[in-house]
Amino acid sequence: MKLASRRQGRDGALLVVSRDGSRCADAHDIAPNLQAALDDWLRSEPPLRRRFEELEADVSRGQPLSEVELTAPLPRAYEWIDGSAFINHILLVRRARGAEPPATLHSDPLVYQGGSGFLLGPSDAFSLGDEQHGLDFESEVAVILGDTPRGTTARDAALHIRLLLLANDWTFRNLIPAELAKGFGFFVSKPATSFSPFAVTPDELGTAYHDGRVHLPLQTSLNGELVGDPDAGPEMHFSFFDLVAHVTQTRALTAGTILGSGTVSNADPARGVSCLAERRARELIATGSAKTPFLRADDQVEIEMFDGAGVSIFGAISARVSR
Amino acid sequence: MKLASRRQGRDGALLVVSRDGSRCADAHDIAPNLQAALDDWLRSEPPLRRRFEELEADVSRGQPLSEVELTAPLPRAYEWIDGSAFINHILLVRRARGAEPPATLHSDPLVYQGGSGFLLGPSDAFSLGDEQHGLDFESEVAVILGDTPRGTTARDAALHIRLLLLANDWTFRNLIPAELAKGFGFFVSKPATSFSPFAVTPDELGTAYHDGRVHLPLQTSLNGELVGDPDAGPEMHFSFFDLVAHVTQTRALTAGTILGSGTVSNADPARGVSCLAERRARELIATGSAKTPFLRADDQVEIEMFDGAGVSIFGAISARVSR
Repeated sequence: MKLASRRQGRDGALLVVSRDGSRCADAHDIAPNLQAALDDWLRSEPPLRRRFEELEADVSRGQPLSEVELTAPLPRAYEWIDGSAFINHILLVRRARGAEPPATLHSDPLVYQGGSGFLLGPSDAFSLGDEQHGLDFESEVAVILGDTPRGTTARDAALHIRLLLLANDWTFRNLIPAELAKGFGFFVSKPATSFSPFAVTPDELGTAYHDGRVHLPLQTSLNGELVGDPDAGPEMHFSFFDLVAHVTQTRALTAGTILGSGTVSNADPARGVSCLAERRARELIATGSAKTPFLRADDQVEIEMFDGAGVSIFGAISARVSR
Repeated sequence: MKLASRRQGRDGALLVVSRDGSRCADAHDIAPNLQAALDDWLRSEPPLRRRFEELEADVSRGQPLSEVELTAPLPRAYEWIDGSAFINHILLVRRARGAEPPATLHSDPLVYQGGSGFLLGPSDAFSLGDEQHGLDFESEVAVILGDTPRGTTARDAALHIRLLLLANDWTFRNLIPAELAKGFGFFVSKPATSFSPFAVTPDELGTAYHDGRVHLPLQTSLNGELVGDPDAGPEMHFSFFDLVAHVTQTRALTAGTILGSGTVSNADPARGVSCLAERRARELIATGSAKTPFLRADDQVEIEMFDGAGVSIFGAISARVSR
C-alpha cells in the first residue's frame, strides 16, 4: 500500500496511491490525515488496504496524481530522528572536516534528534539563505514508526515499522564544525528536511526489504546528472532494527516518529555519492583539494528509488534550491 | 490566563484554570486540545480569555482541580528545544565531568533538540531504569511558541511567545560523557521531560516577566527538602528572545514548539541548585569528591514557582522516581 498527503491545512489530507504512482484516491473518510491513521493504525490499516486494492483493481478509478499538490506524507511530525548508519559516510565526511571518527563507530550508532515541526514536501523549494553556509543534500531511506515502547529490542523492532519513505536531510556543512565544537550536536546546521511523496508499507518492497534494510540502489541526481546510486542495503552497518533498539533505550517513541538511515553510502567510489561532502572528501584525498562546490541557487536535486520492474517506489523528491 | 490539559486520548482535553489553581472549566468546545488552540491562536485566544474571566469572576463556577487528572499541557509536541542559558550551570557541570566550556560560551547559545513525542505530566512517575545511569532532575522555565518564522530577530521574538511553563528535563548524567564523545549531542542521556500542570500567558507573570526572562525564584525540593531557589531572571545570560533568534537562524518553528531555558542556576551557592550535578560539582571543587548520590527509586522531586502574593503560578511538578 502506498500513502501520500494532499496539501490541506497543517497535516495534509490522506490519499491512497496506486502502485505505479499514477493515480490516487481520497482516504480522509478513513483517517483525516496520515498522523491520525498512525495514531489508530490497527483500525485504519484494513480499510486503507481495501481502498488501495480497489484502486489497483480498476485503472479507471481514482484521480490522476499529477493533478494533486502533495506535501510530505507527514507535513509535521512528533519526532524526526536521523541515524548515520553507513560507516563509509562517517569516515569520509569526518576526514573531510578533519575530525576523528568516534571510537565506538562499529558498536554504538550515531543518531541525532532533528527538527520536525515543518517538514518539506517532495517538490517544495529549499531556501538557500547564505551561500557561505555550504548547503548540501543527504539522500536517505527512512521509516515511520508506530508506538514503540522504551526498551524495544532489535528483534521486536520490525513490529513497530509501519511505513518506509525517502528523505533529503538538507545540511549546512560550513555550520557544522563550530556547532559540534560546542558539544550539544546539530541544530542550525540541520534545517528542515524534505520527504518523498509516498510512504509505503514494507510489503511494497517485497524481498528487497529484509534484515531491517532496503536492498536497492538509491539514485540521486544534481541538475539532471546522476551523482550516485549506492545500494541502501548491505553497507548499512546498523539496520533500522538496530537503530530502533538504540533510540528506545531510555524512552518510548510515539506513533508517527520518523527514523532515518543517514546518508546512503558505499565504499566503492564507482557507486558515486548521496551528498556533495563525500565527493569533496574523495577529491581532497585524491588531489589535496575539494573542487566540487556546495549547492547554489537554482540547483535541482532529485532523489528516487526504483524496484526491479522499474517502478519508482516512493516517487521522486525533486527540489529546486531557491534564493 | 492559565491553561491545562485533562488526561484524554493522545493530546488531552483543554481546560481553563483559575488564577489560584483551585478550579477549572472545560474549554474543549473552543479548541479540543492545547495544540489545536495554538494552531489557531488568533481565533481561540479571545474566547479562552473570556472563559478564564468568567471563572475568575465567580468562585462558584468550575470544577475543583483536585478532581481532575492532568497531563502535560502538551502531552506530545512537535518540537522540544532546550537551551542552556545559565552560564553558571554550564561552568559547574562541565567542570564536574572534566570537560571544557565552549569557547563561544558568552556569544553563542547552547541548545539541543529533545524528544517530544511523549511528554510527562506533572504527577507522572519517572521510571528509573538502570540506577547506574545516574538520573538527575533539571528545573527549568520554558515557553511555548506560536508559528515562528525563519530569521526571527530577538527584537521580534516576544510576538511569538504564547505561554510559559516549568519543565523537569530528566537527565541520565552517566550516559552523557560517552554520548557527547560521539559528537552528535544528547539522545539516550535525555529521556522524556516532565512539565508543570499549567501553561500561562505572559501577562500572568506581570512585571516579573521582562526582557525575555522570568524574574522570580524557581524552587526545587527533593524528598520534601528545599535544594534550591535560584532566581530565573538576572543570570539567564541568553534571554528567551535571544534563544528564539538563535534557533530560527536556519528554519521556522511550528506552533506548539516548546523552548526551555536550561537548568536555572545562580553563581551564589546560597541559592542552592536546580540539579544534583551542580551540587556534586560544588562538592568536588570544595572537597575533592562528590558525595551527593543521583536519584534513586522512591525519591520525590518537586518544582514550583510562586509570585509575590504566594500563588503557585504554574502549579507543581511533583514526580516520584519509580523502579
